[in-house]
Amino acid sequence: MSPVVGVIGGGQLARMMIPAAVHLGIDIRVLAENEGESASLAVSHLGDYRNAADVLRFCEGVDVITFDHEHVPQDVLGALLDAGVTVRPAPDALLYAQDKLLMRERLAALGIPIPDWARVSTAEQLGAFLDEHGGAAVLKTPRGGYDGKGVRVVHAASDGDDWFAAGGDLLVEELVDFRRELAQVVARRPSGELAMWPVVESVQRDGVCAEVIAPAPASAGRLADVAADIATAIAEGLGVTGVLAVELFETTDERLVVNELAMRPHNTGHWTIDGSTTSQFEQHLRAVLDLPLGATGCRDEWSVMVNVLGGPSTGSLADRFPRALAAQPTVKFHTYGKAPRPGRKVGHVTAGGDDLDEVVYRARAASGFFAD
Amino acid sequence: MSPVVGVIGGGQLARMMIPAAVHLGIDIRVLAENEGESASLAVSHLGDYRNAADVLRFCEGVDVITFDHEHVPQDVLGALLDAGVTVRPAPDALLYAQDKLLMRERLAALGIPIPDWARVSTAEQLGAFLDEHGGAAVLKTPRGGYDGKGVRVVHAASDGDDWFAAGGDLLVEELVDFRRELAQVVARRPSGELAMWPVVESVQRDGVCAEVIAPAPASAGRLADVAADIATAIAEGLGVTGVLAVELFETTDERLVVNELAMRPHNTGHWTIDGSTTSQFEQHLRAVLDLPLGATGCRDEWSVMVNVLGGPSTGSLADRFPRALAAQPTVKFHTYGKAPRPGRKVGHVTAGGDDLDEVVYRARAASGFFAD
Repeated sequence: MSPVVGVIGGGQLARMMIPAAVHLGIDIRVLAENEGESASLAVSHLGDYRNAADVLRFCEGVDVITFDHEHVPQDVLGALLDAGVTVRPAPDALLYAQDKLLMRERLAALGIPIPDWARVSTAEQLGAFLDEHGGAAVLKTPRGGYDGKGVRVVHAASDGDDWFAAGGDLLVEELVDFRRELAQVVARRPSGELAMWPVVESVQRDGVCAEVIAPAPASAGRLADVAADIATAIAEGLGVTGVLAVELFETTDERLVVNELAMRPHNTGHWTIDGSTTSQFEQHLRAVLDLPLGATGCRDEWSVMVNVLGGPSTGSLADRFPRALAAQPTVKFHTYGKAPRPGRKVGHVTAGGDDLDEVVYRARAASGFFAD
Repeated sequence: MSPVVGVIGGGQLARMMIPAAVHLGIDIRVLAENEGESASLAVSHLGDYRNAADVLRFCEGVDVITFDHEHVPQDVLGALLDAGVTVRPAPDALLYAQDKLLMRERLAALGIPIPDWARVSTAEQLGAFLDEHGGAAVLKTPRGGYDGKGVRVVHAASDGDDWFAAGGDLLVEELVDFRRELAQVVARRPSGELAMWPVVESVQRDGVCAEVIAPAPASAGRLADVAADIATAIAEGLGVTGVLAVELFETTDERLVVNELAMRPHNTGHWTIDGSTTSQFEQHLRAVLDLPLGATGCRDEWSVMVNVLGGPSTGSLADRFPRALAAQPTVKFHTYGKAPRPGRKVGHVTAGGDDLDEVVYRARAASGFFAD
């Protein structure tokens, strides 16, 4: 009777699809690796997403399969397609969110603005790239990196020796001289309809998203148009269905170049839960079910999201609720039901209003109650 | 680690607590009578809410028990208190939402404005009340009524004979000459903190809430103040914890009198999910956990909620999504996962904006896609 969406992965992105599914009337089921994961309320199966038999069992009775993360191997995805399962985004699109070398090759072929880059498999090749780019570059493992993992700044040809020893090609990119980081989140359904939220500014700390300001200050006009055009070209060029997040550098010479892609709801879109008519989680469900997309207008002039990371002595986040909720009655608190290990994303807060400085202050103050 | 709230009853009110619990990070568990009820995603136990043993088993490991409906017998609630379970609202408050005769007696004692009323146990007593009130009155069974059930307009002393024959006293009330129906929804936590949304107008059809306009048109000032004072006096006078909905008549001579009470989230508060900073469902969870209450400001100048009732040939609501969602991208759709029997509340829609006529139009148009 209700449409059934199966989500592979039990993290906070799957968790935050639950409220949207409950309200809209969608039956949501989650495949998690372990009990007690963030999305445990909707877990219908425990299993290994690398095991085709586990995943196929989970797919029984499901109308469409989608993802909490990009790590499901292509051979497992192929087995789903062979079995007639609808998978969105499709494996041949998801590929470009799984492998950064393939992504750079494909975006280059599409004419999308990206940093200078090269595929390197030896220290000599890395050294040559460094010589051509002022002696500094960013080295990335093509697969498995997130939140600053699998990424390092290099200055010498030998700086990648450990990764080269592990085998496989690496991606090296110019160290972009950027003013700030932006993100353009968009949703596309199989029929081709596209909807996007305003481009946002993303503030990173230690390679992890710390704050998001929506819309990005001083972005109206050319910047917003260019970001939208880039995201549209990628969504259509790669045939993405569901939510696509395009992370961008705004360079000091006022160009936008693509940093990373994610084909799922993304940290830079969490503000939409409280700040937009349609959240990225509801939109992702609509898109993968090929339902008409919702309006993406802003509920407030400014929305600011601040992540909550586990601190050195953060116990249960709920212990902080009495003070935090009393101090910030207008802030929306989101916690992910995860053990708060230091540096781990365990929640976020979103504030909204007309005065950006005041909104930033309120969001940071609310997050600060969980910080130590 | 997370606070645990147990909800007795698996209907749409329990269902709509799930999104709020997931976002805030509250572990929500539901006791339902049958599989497949509206709140089934959070059901941890199946059992009979009239059976103390069933309910006590459900209470293990729960921090606080609250309700989807008012029908849990006082002897079962007493057994929970005896076992040391925290129950909110407390049984001695909930009593007044369970029994309309006790409610009328108590509100009269508190000096709250209510219609003329009497306890009647014979046709003669009913006839005497009719003689004193122009030959028409409203007769109600004290317990078990909802959505127009257990309520009838009477004109003759014999009009209640079937109910008298079933035994027990009845409540008879004057037929209030009212201009419109209003509702004041408020939340109160055990510590005494109180928060309320603006008074709303509730449009009833066939004894069932059809539409809610928030705030009630032309209510700013005296009307809002009187409604707030009445709801505060009841919440404090009865010691209510959690959400309290006070249904009011606005009489043709511009008085407000109390019609009904509900001590749980209420249909007249559904607009708060999309229209207020804090929804009634989040506020109810905060209140029963004795956490600080959230801000109750409006996200839009006007919010209009229209219920979706099952129509004569309504199949799966999801079949209507492609047309409905495409036509109304700004409207928020909520469906309850219930089989759409004719006249049954199976969902609602909420629209928001600056122009009331336009907002009403959009909400009705969205609901209309499910009407036939």
